[in-house]
Amino acid sequence: MKLWQKETSTNKQVETFTVGQDREMDLFLAEFDVLGSLAHTQMLESIGLLDKIDLTAIQKELKNIYQEIQEGKFTIEDGIEDVHSQVEMLLTQRIGEAGKKIHSGRSRNDQVLVDLKLFFRSQIQEMVISVDELFTLLFQLAEEHKNKLMPGYTHLQIAMPSSFGLWFGAYAESLIDDLELLLASYKICNKNPLGSAAGYGSSFPLNRTMTTNLLGFDNLNYNVVYAQMGRGKTERILSQAMSSVAATLNKMAMDACLFMNQNFGFISFPDELTTGSSIMPHKKNPDVWELIRGRTNQLQALPNQIMMLTTNLPSGYHRDMQLQKETLFPAFQSLMACLDMTILMLKNIKIKDKILDDPKYKHLFSVEEVNKLVLAGTPFREAYKKVGMDIEAGNFDGNYEINHTHEGSIGNLNLKEVNKMMEVIIGQFNFEKVEKALRNLVE
Amino acid sequence: MKLWQKETSTNKQVETFTVGQDREMDLFLAEFDVLGSLAHTQMLESIGLLDKIDLTAIQKELKNIYQEIQEGKFTIEDGIEDVHSQVEMLLTQRIGEAGKKIHSGRSRNDQVLVDLKLFFRSQIQEMVISVDELFTLLFQLAEEHKNKLMPGYTHLQIAMPSSFGLWFGAYAESLIDDLELLLASYKICNKNPLGSAAGYGSSFPLNRTMTTNLLGFDNLNYNVVYAQMGRGKTERILSQAMSSVAATLNKMAMDACLFMNQNFGFISFPDELTTGSSIMPHKKNPDVWELIRGRTNQLQALPNQIMMLTTNLPSGYHRDMQLQKETLFPAFQSLMACLDMTILMLKNIKIKDKILDDPKYKHLFSVEEVNKLVLAGTPFREAYKKVGMDIEAGNFDGNYEINHTHEGSIGNLNLKEVNKMMEVIIGQFNFEKVEKALRNLVE
Amino acid sequence: MKLWQKETSTNKQVETFTVGQDREMDLFLAEFDVLGSLAHTQMLESIGLLDKIDLTAIQKELKNIYQEIQEGKFTIEDGIEDVHSQVEMLLTQRIGEAGKKIHSGRSRNDQVLVDLKLFFRSQIQEMVISVDELFTLLFQLAEEHKNKLMPGYTHLQIAMPSSFGLWFGAYAESLIDDLELLLASYKICNKNPLGSAAGYGSSFPLNRTMTTNLLGFDNLNYNVVYAQMGRGKTERILSQAMSSVAATLNKMAMDACLFMNQNFGFISFPDELTTGSSIMPHKKNPDVWELIRGRTNQLQALPNQIMMLTTNLPSGYHRDMQLQKETLFPAFQSLMACLDMTILMLKNIKIKDKILDDPKYKHLFSVEEVNKLVLAGTPFREAYKKVGMDIEAGNFDGNYEINHTHEGSIGNLNLKEVNKMMEVIIGQFNFEKVEKALRNLVE
Amino acid sequence: MKLWQKETSTNKQVETFTVGQDREMDLFLAEFDVLGSLAHTQMLESIGLLDKIDLTAIQKELKNIYQEIQEGKFTIEDGIEDVHSQVEMLLTQRIGEAGKKIHSGRSRNDQVLVDLKLFFRSQIQEMVISVDELFTLLFQLAEEHKNKLMPGYTHLQIAMPSSFGLWFGAYAESLIDDLELLLASYKICNKNPLGSAAGYGSSFPLNRTMTTNLLGFDNLNYNVVYAQMGRGKTERILSQAMSSVAATLNKMAMDACLFMNQNFGFISFPDELTTGSSIMPHKKNPDVWELIRGRTNQLQALPNQIMMLTTNLPSGYHRDMQLQKETLFPAFQSLMACLDMTILMLKNIKIKDKILDDPKYKHLFSVEEVNKLVLAGTPFREAYKKVGMDIEAGNFDGNYEINHTHEGSIGNLNLKEVNKMMEVIIGQFNFEKVEKALRNLVE
Repeated sequence: MKLWQKETSTNKQVETFTVGQDREMDLFLAEFDVLGSLAHTQMLESIGLLDKIDLTAIQKELKNIYQEIQEGKFTIEDGIEDVHSQVEMLLTQRIGEAGKKIHSGRSRNDQVLVDLKLFFRSQIQEMVISVDELFTLLFQLAEEHKNKLMPGYTHLQIAMPSSFGLWFGAYAESLIDDLELLLASYKICNKNPLGSAAGYGSSFPLNRTMTTNLLGFDNLNYNVVYAQMGRGKTERILSQAMSSVAATLNKMAMDACLFMNQNFGFISFPDELTTGSSIMPHKKNPDVWELIRGRTNQLQALPNQIMMLTTNLPSGYHRDMQLQKETLFPAFQSLMACLDMTILMLKNIKIKDKILDDPKYKHLFSVEEVNKLVLAGTPFREAYKKVGMDIEAGNFDGNYEINHTHEGSIGNLNLKEVNKMMEVIIGQFNFEKVEKALRNLVE
Repeated sequence: MKLWQKETSTNKQVETFTVGQDREMDLFLAEFDVLGSLAHTQMLESIGLLDKIDLTAIQKELKNIYQEIQEGKFTIEDGIEDVHSQVEMLLTQRIGEAGKKIHSGRSRNDQVLVDLKLFFRSQIQEMVISVDELFTLLFQLAEEHKNKLMPGYTHLQIAMPSSFGLWFGAYAESLIDDLELLLASYKICNKNPLGSAAGYGSSFPLNRTMTTNLLGFDNLNYNVVYAQMGRGKTERILSQAMSSVAATLNKMAMDACLFMNQNFGFISFPDELTTGSSIMPHKKNPDVWELIRGRTNQLQALPNQIMMLTTNLPSGYHRDMQLQKETLFPAFQSLMACLDMTILMLKNIKIKDKILDDPKYKHLFSVEEVNKLVLAGTPFREAYKKVGMDIEAGNFDGNYEINHTHEGSIGNLNLKEVNKMMEVIIGQFNFEKVEKALRNLVE
Repeated sequence: MKLWQKETSTNKQVETFTVGQDREMDLFLAEFDVLGSLAHTQMLESIGLLDKIDLTAIQKELKNIYQEIQEGKFTIEDGIEDVHSQVEMLLTQRIGEAGKKIHSGRSRNDQVLVDLKLFFRSQIQEMVISVDELFTLLFQLAEEHKNKLMPGYTHLQIAMPSSFGLWFGAYAESLIDDLELLLASYKICNKNPLGSAAGYGSSFPLNRTMTTNLLGFDNLNYNVVYAQMGRGKTERILSQAMSSVAATLNKMAMDACLFMNQNFGFISFPDELTTGSSIMPHKKNPDVWELIRGRTNQLQALPNQIMMLTTNLPSGYHRDMQLQKETLFPAFQSLMACLDMTILMLKNIKIKDKILDDPKYKHLFSVEEVNKLVLAGTPFREAYKKVGMDIEAGNFDGNYEINHTHEGSIGNLNLKEVNKMMEVIIGQFNFEKVEKALRNLVE
Repeated sequence: MKLWQKETSTNKQVETFTVGQDREMDLFLAEFDVLGSLAHTQMLESIGLLDKIDLTAIQKELKNIYQEIQEGKFTIEDGIEDVHSQVEMLLTQRIGEAGKKIHSGRSRNDQVLVDLKLFFRSQIQEMVISVDELFTLLFQLAEEHKNKLMPGYTHLQIAMPSSFGLWFGAYAESLIDDLELLLASYKICNKNPLGSAAGYGSSFPLNRTMTTNLLGFDNLNYNVVYAQMGRGKTERILSQAMSSVAATLNKMAMDACLFMNQNFGFISFPDELTTGSSIMPHKKNPDVWELIRGRTNQLQALPNQIMMLTTNLPSGYHRDMQLQKETLFPAFQSLMACLDMTILMLKNIKIKDKILDDPKYKHLFSVEEVNKLVLAGTPFREAYKKVGMDIEAGNFDGNYEINHTHEGSIGNLNLKEVNKMMEVIIGQFNFEKVEKALRNLVE
């Protein structure tokens, strides 16, 4: 069944090709499609396009369907093109002709647009919760290991002393900046496209402000042509935000692989979190970290995939947009899995003690030596030259004491201030407002 | 001259390869390098690493150099590796040994980090000003042409009536969402990395809060390891924000090329804004729009270039990061040029009248007809079928009147509300705060 | 069951994350895994690592399994990690301990490497066959429609006369150059990595030349470290070749969407190959072409995904490589579907007659007029100016006759020569050689 | 001056924006533009569009200009739009009206197309020569260091013994496969687009076969519409080939950075090939390798930039194509610089002796131990388990002797066979044929 079918039938091969993975992907949207219809039909009644009796029947049954979706009982049946058709068909089977009226004043274009925005909002919320959980763990680890020193590298060369407090804390702070992008994408998702129909509005006297409020949106995508342009653009911006979290995890994963390497040997993980080799019985491989590194690269490649799909296309809907579902939807699960696995691994990390006791790290302390000379009155450039000469002549023997006191340094991680920054940004999402609106719709 | 030079000299070929385009690119940073040094030296004096007399001399001369940069008199001399060396050398030439002290408590790593953040802040401000100028023009054009109808297309097929009011207004509204990303990137740029040295902090008792305030930053990149991670990350996020503005212009440019095509013929431009052909004397080509389309594609490809440079690298500085200057810096000029040219073209756009009088557009009104039947009581699905049959039988003759009243539709563009959204987001940048801090530094 | 399992068990969550989509993806490799084992075990017997009796049992049962795979009866059972484990387990269940010996002298690394190369070879062959089928169709359409003129556009502006003969012929010729890349990737796939073990070779006296011949490879990846580097590299190169075919189809799809647009109206397709709208009863949308355009963009984004996964990684196997299966394998089906759908559509294309009779196209003939003046003695630059002035003054009235005779022009498509180029390149694949080798293995 | 100028003048801002970097980029094409004109004018005379006297004057002066270009005396003057205009203007200044005739039967479109193909051919030749030089060096280093063992890593974990012979040899062999792509792109470049005019051919009786032979092309781009499609496509394919060489260098650079890291310490370079730090006097940084790694990432991002510029555009020339000059041309120099620097570094590499004597590498030999048990009759899976248990119990003490004999292994690098593969592929370019044709043209 297709909503738009007239008399002519569609070639079978065409149908398979055009439906593509829509039936699988649309399952993610089912819950949100029903939410959209709950709001849309309330609005239709308010402007006289639906009578009270029909509305009551529709609302009751839509809530039942919503419940079935929550319980995992909803499927898209064979021969049904997409989630919108499936919901409308169920409704019509159960309450008769009234079910057919829910499409009035909508196009599939704005119906899927609003489904997507609602879905993305909920996915962003889940990602933010996981990011916050990882932040909290990193924060605790930074505090716990703040006195464990490690070599700091620049150019992959031994550079200056660092610490595990700094290392964990750096990734915690990185997540805060990543959330700035998730917040921007959340704000962009949190505007209502419903009522834009096929991208050119409707001759019905729709009340778009009403659906905006019912669905908990902060605002409207006013211009109906722009509402349609949001397709592809919203996906791009969201994927860019996700690529930022991914980049943070990617770097941590590369660090972990390197630090687990026997030439470094800074960290290790229990056997049940590593994997072996089919021919080398001594192997304990960091597969989890490697797959986090790989998956976060897939996520970083995502915005480019979306841009390639959309660039150079004129305004107005194009069917190419459908393919963004299969491009973006699996990425949510992938990023969530990477966050979960990072948390699992970090909860079990073991850190080697007294790493810097190994004499190969003594040159780490050359800057300390330079600075000591400077504080004693030698100009910096001369102190630098002196210590450099000592090292070349093999005469350098660093002072192993470290006294870093400034903001964000080994001795002063400012974790409290960093935590405050996190709280401030999470507060700006104001998830409660959306949750409350949606509860009102379905209860 | 290289800051880090000891006794051994560097191979000439190595020097050419490693310096690369740094000397050209660093000119963009000169102004900001001086600002950073003005703040850093005030701080050094406050913690006793510089005496008052030296500070006075340094500040006076740095302000002179700042003035010279503003007047276009600053160059990086042959044999000088980068802007940091050039400024330090000038200073030492003019005020003697005191000039050498400005590098105390810093590494080139945090020096360039702070230069970049200051430079990016100023570039974002310029872009926001241009985006706002384009927004205002689109807003005016939407108002001016709100009654000029045009065909709306979906799937590039004639779909429903649209208007030039909608068309201009859509791009105006698009820019608002683009600014959400520029705002996120501004917030990320607006944190102070100075004091992180080579990414592992310093044994000097630096006061990073003081430089944060002097330079007008909102906050610190506290963790010194994270401050260093900002290299590459800041560039990626900024380029992603720029790609969003670029995508908006790209779509407009494709529309313009299509609408200028003789088969459409909706818009035209004066001869002096089009170009000809070397063999076809009748041509008036939309080269400007094509080059906007092309340049905005280069800009959309930019984040991927930056990610490819940084992915899979462990934490700590790597020299690869230097290449981001030549990747990103020219993109600022490119985006500004695209914005300027879009403004120039739109100021001169001519719109054809009465486009919809052409009978080939009559099917645009089929939805209006369906809706009329629905409002008169026919269920939507049946009305749809009836009009579809009429069209197939050649009996459709649409009613050419349009009465769209809902929010964001042809008859109700809600320009005032859209304008308000723009004002709100621009206000959040709070550029005045930064301007005031920098004025205090240089005056 | 995992091949490499010792005493410790793996965390369940880790197992799910690391196995990922391997079990689905490995089904594509099953046939080739058995081929690899057929060759490997013959070689093991020849160097005394397997006795004749075991070899006979193994070969017989592997051929049975091969047959089962061909008949679609092969699955990877729950709890079995990958295809290699499944085949080994089946074999051991059926012939006892001898089954366990097939892994001697191999690692999973070179086992999957050889599976991939065999799989890619077969996929390239299928793609080449489809490309050739499309070429033949385009060739026929070019011949059939060589006298149907159409406007040629540059800058999307009406430029010079073109023809459907040229249009179809252009895409035919494009496919020939695309095959150069598929040929390069075929040559790179057609080298044997088996025997490289985990990327560092084996202390067994393997005869790699023997397996090279048995599997129909042209040559070896000699260096075992390089054989391992082929992972990721082979995928990238193959995806780049596929992106080239994709780019050809992408352009054709955009042309088709534009030419189906009512403002152009050059071509159309039967109703059963187009789709409708849920609200606009007059729509006949080019969804198939739009999805070809979109899918070929996904394919064009593929090489970048693969590069992002592999760049900046040092030599030696990394688990990240596993993710290339899920990135690349579905792309084969996607490209094949695009080729099939393009063929289906083009078989049903309808071309409008006498397009150039429309007076809006008269300026197409301005160059012909210029050339006529030139042939009569006027210098080109003057002739150009004269015709240009006539057009500006509205005095141009082109001569509608066309007489293009040179190679590759409207009047002389050189289809025979183009066809010859196609035959030459397809001959270079020499698929028969591989087919013969593989038949020998399984019969 | 613009070739296509009629009476109206172009807006200054438009001119600046549309000319862009063309004047800088076109300098690369000057030599090839003259070659194209030398062939084109010979052909024009042969079909009666140019008389003998004019031809003689034109040929003589074009050869003078060619000489001036070779001597670095050619510039594009202020106010001249591009190289084609500059050459035509010079010619007209020197020989009068005859100079204006060289544009007959051409458009700037096919003129730049043929310039690009000739330029790309010459750049490919230069790259192939450099690749071959690097190959030869790697080949020599592999032979020289074939007995120096090093640890082989998988998952960045100590895995099995490897050698510097294998390491150098792997990169040598990698370059051979890279050349397959350069060869494919060379074949695609080596077809003549001249005579396709603006992409729709010409009414002049051009002899395209004649210019094909004169310019040393292997074949024609027959179809004139396809010839135009080559723009963008040729660049993409060439950039993909370059990305393959780049990926090989990228991996080598990452290996080098890792092996120079003090935790590995396998290789080192003389001080004059490393760089220092502004604050850490002990640093000897691998900046050259890091910049090779970074530049090769820029090169790997290049094909995506080109695809983004071209995708979704319909057939026919678009001005967007001009931007590919500034995208691709600097990449030639960048790749050549990376090849040169790699050669410089490798010529000076120092390799640490007896790396495997360090006890941390003893587990490298666990597979050898397993294989020894297997050769003595233990089934593989049991031998694997036994050695694994020994390692876990701390009882493993490997036998440090290595005896790898099969093709491509530590003990049998097959360098002669690999060298043969290189000779075969380089022979297929047949550069002599082109060189001979071009000598005939200019002498």
